[in-house]
Amino acid sequence: MADYKIAIIGTGNVATNLALALEEAGHFITEIYGRDLTLAMDLANRLYETEAVDYLDFSESEAGIFFLCISDSAIESVAQNLVLPANAIVVHTSGSMSIQLLATTASYYGVFYPIQTFSKTRIISLGEVPICLESSDGDVREVLVDLASSLSNFVYELNSEERKVAHLAAVFINNFGNHLISLATDIAKEADVPFDLFNALILETAQKAVDIGSDMAQTGPAKRNDENTIITHQSMLSNQPYSATIYRLLSESIQNRFPKNE
Amino acid sequence: MADYKIAIIGTGNVATNLALALEEAGHFITEIYGRDLTLAMDLANRLYETEAVDYLDFSESEAGIFFLCISDSAIESVAQNLVLPANAIVVHTSGSMSIQLLATTASYYGVFYPIQTFSKTRIISLGEVPICLESSDGDVREVLVDLASSLSNFVYELNSEERKVAHLAAVFINNFGNHLISLATDIAKEADVPFDLFNALILETAQKAVDIGSDMAQTGPAKRNDENTIITHQSMLSNQPYSATIYRLLSESIQNRFPKNE
Repeated sequence: MADYKIAIIGTGNVATNLALALEEAGHFITEIYGRDLTLAMDLANRLYETEAVDYLDFSESEAGIFFLCISDSAIESVAQNLVLPANAIVVHTSGSMSIQLLATTASYYGVFYPIQTFSKTRIISLGEVPICLESSDGDVREVLVDLASSLSNFVYELNSEERKVAHLAAVFINNFGNHLISLATDIAKEADVPFDLFNALILETAQKAVDIGSDMAQTGPAKRNDENTIITHQSMLSNQPYSATIYRLLSESIQNRFPKNE
Repeated sequence: MADYKIAIIGTGNVATNLALALEEAGHFITEIYGRDLTLAMDLANRLYETEAVDYLDFSESEAGIFFLCISDSAIESVAQNLVLPANAIVVHTSGSMSIQLLATTASYYGVFYPIQTFSKTRIISLGEVPICLESSDGDVREVLVDLASSLSNFVYELNSEERKVAHLAAVFINNFGNHLISLATDIAKEADVPFDLFNALILETAQKAVDIGSDMAQTGPAKRNDENTIITHQSMLSNQPYSATIYRLLSESIQNRFPKNE
């Protein structure tokens, strides 16, 4: 595997985790771009020898690969204003945006989408994180596969439509799954039940679904059509309108998945 | 800690995991009761020297503690038909039922509720699983704390109301969280996206919520009010009515939790 010189456009959760992982894997981060220069400096300071910049003219940059780690809605306008060295590859890291957003920015472009939840304050290893690639041509493909393989054991190629589906599934798993934990936190807090009580359950819920599949793993009042418990639970949620509606809807959806005489 | 002689009433997910864990911790399982004797024999055969029975007259039993590991709706009638030796303790393992259901069965009674998701086919260690106790008196309390401590490092005392709340929170975390993974599986499958892609995300979602708390961990289109992505996702779910409604409701609930100008 080759070592690459890489510039990162962005200073958020994905930019932070990717920049640190790429450097850890032996690549060189030449520049961090931030609209807010202080944020770019904050991230550059966590790296070996990286320049923080707030301009998009990279014609003098040594980087060969440019990562757009910015919000979906910013990709198009940033890509239009980006000035790249000859023969550079530009990629975005979005689950939901098409590769074609980059077609007018450079001759060589692609998508580098890691299926994971990132936060600036929580730097995680990418070794087990699937990286989904899309490439403008075979040469770009070769470079991106090489680069992704230096970070992760799981490199996939998904086209823009498949990647959109993967991102939607990830929203259910992570964003919505995490939100259910927040709602459970509220329920426990209101009765002064310590939330530590649920740590083992949170972890086993995930591990069990991975190990035996979520359909085999499903348990609970809705699965076994225990209407008494369902009614009691609804009445306990009478002053939490979102939780009450979510309880009813998810119970119905589970009952729809496991009809009464299974 | 003392070793106890214990009879288990029930042959399901909780009965199986508790019986095996109790034996592993050095206790002796005297009998397994099953309405269906073959199920009782299946479980008894996994234990050292345990009798399978299909009657509820335990007046000759050597057991000092009786575990009701049966469905909520069966506890009352089974408890009424149970005949126990003098001075025996009877406990149920339900999150949602009151301790008082056992008050006419024996002089010594309690609740022994492990906050975990159990399946017969997946035997898990109880070392990190919180066990919530409730006791009819101080003597019972002493025995149950001693017994629970032989299985788990996390022993709590919750009254019937607190335990009901804990069970409701557990339904959100486990039953509903697992169901979201099932819905994500369907979304991926319809587009032939391999579900292995999401294993790292499932596990990190749980670990991150435990480590930094779910509010800190929240990310995604709803959190950042990315209406374009939300609308695209809704349109992708147009032929999956439950998933579409769940997407809309959970996104609203996240937006309600993180108002626009946070």
